[in-house]
Amino acid sequence: MSKIKVAIVQHTCSNDYEENMKTGINGIEKAAAQGADLVLLPELSMSTYFCITEDPDNYDLAEPIPGKTTEQLQAVAKQNNIIIVATVFEKRAKGLYHNTAIVIDKDGSLAGIYRKMHIPDDPGFYEKYYFTPGEQGFIPIDTSIGRLGVLICWDQWYPEAARIMALSGAELLLFPSAIGWEPAETEQEKIRQRNAWITIQKSHAIANNLPVIVSNRIGLEDLDGCDDNATQFWGSSFIAGQQGETLAKAAPEDDCVIIAEIDLDKTEQTRRIWPYFRDRRIEHYQGILQRHIDDKK
Amino acid sequence: MSKIKVAIVQHTCSNDYEENMKTGINGIEKAAAQGADLVLLPELSMSTYFCITEDPDNYDLAEPIPGKTTEQLQAVAKQNNIIIVATVFEKRAKGLYHNTAIVIDKDGSLAGIYRKMHIPDDPGFYEKYYFTPGEQGFIPIDTSIGRLGVLICWDQWYPEAARIMALSGAELLLFPSAIGWEPAETEQEKIRQRNAWITIQKSHAIANNLPVIVSNRIGLEDLDGCDDNATQFWGSSFIAGQQGETLAKAAPEDDCVIIAEIDLDKTEQTRRIWPYFRDRRIEHYQGILQRHIDDKK
Repeated sequence: MSKIKVAIVQHTCSNDYEENMKTGINGIEKAAAQGADLVLLPELSMSTYFCITEDPDNYDLAEPIPGKTTEQLQAVAKQNNIIIVATVFEKRAKGLYHNTAIVIDKDGSLAGIYRKMHIPDDPGFYEKYYFTPGEQGFIPIDTSIGRLGVLICWDQWYPEAARIMALSGAELLLFPSAIGWEPAETEQEKIRQRNAWITIQKSHAIANNLPVIVSNRIGLEDLDGCDDNATQFWGSSFIAGQQGETLAKAAPEDDCVIIAEIDLDKTEQTRRIWPYFRDRRIEHYQGILQRHIDDKK
Repeated sequence: MSKIKVAIVQHTCSNDYEENMKTGINGIEKAAAQGADLVLLPELSMSTYFCITEDPDNYDLAEPIPGKTTEQLQAVAKQNNIIIVATVFEKRAKGLYHNTAIVIDKDGSLAGIYRKMHIPDDPGFYEKYYFTPGEQGFIPIDTSIGRLGVLICWDQWYPEAARIMALSGAELLLFPSAIGWEPAETEQEKIRQRNAWITIQKSHAIANNLPVIVSNRIGLEDLDGCDDNATQFWGSSFIAGQQGETLAKAAPEDDCVIIAEIDLDKTEQTRRIWPYFRDRRIEHYQGILQRHIDDKK
């Protein structure tokens, strides 16, 4: 199967789990009705972005895998004959939590999970409080439509992550995200930030000759109506082809489903035209494994 | 010195060495007159792009470093109080050649050289015939305005190269290039290729929070009027800031000098906002050192 259809559900998220699940399922069903083989939800889409603050009560939102979200989406995947990629706040053990992607195949089976490796932490995005960084590394997940390189949000800024997925045979890169602006930011800075986010993810398509699928949530989320740490999630979900070209994109504020056809054979074609993988100087990349290459004094 | 001015000379190249040198010097003088601290020439700008064919006579174009090009540009640098970054077809020994960048400081001293590490080879770009790949690795070069991460053309497709330069303290990334379209290519493919080239280099700015300076030549070059392997060099030289934002850009066909002011302090500022370097999972990047991560059978 060389040509596949992939979709993204972009939506607002509320504090109501059942409502978020319903919104997600509606989007998944729309994608399936348009013939999508795979659909990607935004990061942690079953709640508001609780990492806006450090509150121990928020650990109550976590669930095991499999658990209620995985099981409901397994039923939806099977019913709609579609691969679902979602993320859940995973409770792995008492006091041990991860930000984890689940990949459910068309038959409803759990094809695999990926635990977010790079964990951000900055004002309004206190993820280091909630999530232990994944320790499994960058391992793609096999499905009935191909091998998926699933990464999560902050991972998107690290070319190393995309590269290792590609070297491991990933045929698609997926980035569920929850990213936005501080509302008080200048318009110019907002443009620079969003363009940087689009550009870095398209660059993973280009450097590795792989399609890239990026979902994001939308809407303003704040804490008890307090503007401190409020985030305006910027939507702009997109699907890019093997040369980084845009195949489909969503607006910054629309609840929507976007869909695009991808030709997986184009990876081989583009790698023949610009054969980067032939020429990597692996014997000279040891510096990548260092935190910083300090001057010899 | 936090704020510096950097310039690019974008121009056509002919078979006449003296003419190319004169064009380059004219551009350098224009850049200096506008207050530039540094100027970048296109890749191998002292000749047409001879790698269009494999011809042993073309080895006659090579020269030692220092040699005639280095020495002339050293005089020009000193006279104009400007850092010059150029590339030469280096004759290192009898039968041993490199594609090499020279960095000349404002006082005319040779601050350092960088030998192209990733060597392309595809129809019309037969570089593996002419150039032995550099074996020094990715080592930035110290100058009076800061530490320069000089890379050359094909290196631009490898995030590893930019990353190692950044980890080694580079404050600017520079990419002299000679890249273009096959004239017979479709317009859509031309757009995809050029956008990919712009995007991947901007991504190095973004991933590493470093300004990026990219030069390219312009003009149609063919071999004895034969269209086989002809290349329309696409110009489009540009200067990008630490978030990948365009600070200056050239058109695809103009002989021109472009210039922009860069604030080197913005690297620290952007790294505080989105602190990627804090969170690299270096203990999980070993796969980068592999050619391919084959399935365990």
